[in-house]
Amino acid sequence: MKIGLDIMGGDFAPKATVLGAIEAQKALLPGQKIVLFGDKDQALPLISENGIDPEVFEYIHTTEMIGMGEHAAKAVLQKPNSSISLGFQHLKDGHIDAFSSAGNTGAMLVGAMFSVKPVAGVIRPAIATNVPKLKSGFGIMLDVGANADCKPDVLAQFGILGSLYAEHVYNVQNPKVALMNIGEEEEKGNVLTQATFPLLQKTNLNFVGNIEGRDLFNDKADVIVCDGFTGNVMLKLAETFYILTLKKGFKDEFFDRFNYEQYGGSPILGVNAPVLIGHGISSPEAIKNMVLLCRTMIEAEFVDKIKEAFK
Amino acid sequence: MKIGLDIMGGDFAPKATVLGAIEAQKALLPGQKIVLFGDKDQALPLISENGIDPEVFEYIHTTEMIGMGEHAAKAVLQKPNSSISLGFQHLKDGHIDAFSSAGNTGAMLVGAMFSVKPVAGVIRPAIATNVPKLKSGFGIMLDVGANADCKPDVLAQFGILGSLYAEHVYNVQNPKVALMNIGEEEEKGNVLTQATFPLLQKTNLNFVGNIEGRDLFNDKADVIVCDGFTGNVMLKLAETFYILTLKKGFKDEFFDRFNYEQYGGSPILGVNAPVLIGHGISSPEAIKNMVLLCRTMIEAEFVDKIKEAFK
Repeated sequence: MKIGLDIMGGDFAPKATVLGAIEAQKALLPGQKIVLFGDKDQALPLISENGIDPEVFEYIHTTEMIGMGEHAAKAVLQKPNSSISLGFQHLKDGHIDAFSSAGNTGAMLVGAMFSVKPVAGVIRPAIATNVPKLKSGFGIMLDVGANADCKPDVLAQFGILGSLYAEHVYNVQNPKVALMNIGEEEEKGNVLTQATFPLLQKTNLNFVGNIEGRDLFNDKADVIVCDGFTGNVMLKLAETFYILTLKKGFKDEFFDRFNYEQYGGSPILGVNAPVLIGHGISSPEAIKNMVLLCRTMIEAEFVDKIKEAFK
Repeated sequence: MKIGLDIMGGDFAPKATVLGAIEAQKALLPGQKIVLFGDKDQALPLISENGIDPEVFEYIHTTEMIGMGEHAAKAVLQKPNSSISLGFQHLKDGHIDAFSSAGNTGAMLVGAMFSVKPVAGVIRPAIATNVPKLKSGFGIMLDVGANADCKPDVLAQFGILGSLYAEHVYNVQNPKVALMNIGEEEEKGNVLTQATFPLLQKTNLNFVGNIEGRDLFNDKADVIVCDGFTGNVMLKLAETFYILTLKKGFKDEFFDRFNYEQYGGSPILGVNAPVLIGHGISSPEAIKNMVLLCRTMIEAEFVDKIKEAFK
């Protein structure tokens, strides 16, 4: 098993990424290896400083990188030797089994869509995120930004993708799938959610109906389906609350579970390989968990589960 | 000046509504009167118990009411003698200058749209809500539920309605108007926000561009424009956080300002009279502030300001 990691991605790269890789490596089993994409000359001193044998990693050396602010599609095209572009090339060619980066989200999305490509039958892959639940654990919300405009059949597929992710990667039995809406009754909503409701009913999912903004943290749903505009707005609003509680010094077990570090990144669900996007401000702990989530997705043969569901 | 109040509306009616009316009455000046719509036989004992002369109020007696769960359009049609229907009849006929209720939101919306009707030129009226700002004060977010699906020209009008409300009712000078979006750059967003951006630029508003979910509580905008689906989801999510901080016993001046009671209800902006919708769980304090907000809107000649802007 080879897990690709872009060590040039994120606000604190390459230090946070290399330190995260070191921590992740300690948790890996024999036969599981991390492949570092990026500037080897910057990585090696960091690895040596920490008393680690550089041979535990593989390296794809490059000094080229895609910046956080760059236009995603252009950058991927114009920088074939960037760490993200090379990562996707290796993923496409089967040299690595998963690829992860805390770098440019748009570039990760473009790379995933145009190199490894969507699974046959999946109309639009989606970015999923973890949402903490008040009682314990967390739910999966998708899409949170890959698709600003969605059609009903796309939204219904998000239900399938999210349900498979909850079931096979987080071992949730028969995940409860709900549609984010502005009322609980079937007829409530905008044109999109009104048309999506019957499509979700027709799936073999455990569809529990509509939920509202107030239900994000309760136990009504394990998988929350929404278009990428709504999901992105909700995610950023929820993050703001978490940051506020931190700033104001409120300590609480529930708010602690908003900490993105423990979730290890957001997967792009519906493409032909595990692809994980980390938060721009990823710490070594976040990078470590992103690499370990890659491992879990590979071990769960998650992409095969999607292929089976959509064939 | 006559301010109409539905005393049958809300989870704690008629007690909370009558007590709220009593408190509001104490703050009114000579010539300002509250007209109570509802069961006078229930109201009078509550008024006497509190040592108030019943003559301070006017009464439109009815025992009929529209329940919280009733189908709005049907109920308004089938219950012409309900407190909400009578309130709108009196508002339309000019017997009262504003109407407010903590009852069925849908019925309030239907009543506003079909009795007092939208101001000429306003395509779709919107429900606005107050959002507390971290530093101090609050912003205005609209729409939060009247229009689940919006066209770009409708969204641009929300900017005008919200700006007028901030300026004339809350005395905000040259209100900063922003578009809720999933990125700050002009080209970001879904089809709706991408098309709305240039329309807002063309207005004579102080349009400051796009903001994101994380900006809801900062000072980037005084007026936050969004479709009613997005606004409703955000509002309910924000309310959930407020309730959580209460439950967990976090005391904080900022979170205190989430308390809906102090804002006195959400106006339907863009109809031919001040119409205010209270929270279903409205306390006497909330009812009092809703009545006083009616007064402010009447004194500000707010509807005339809208008529001028759209003529």
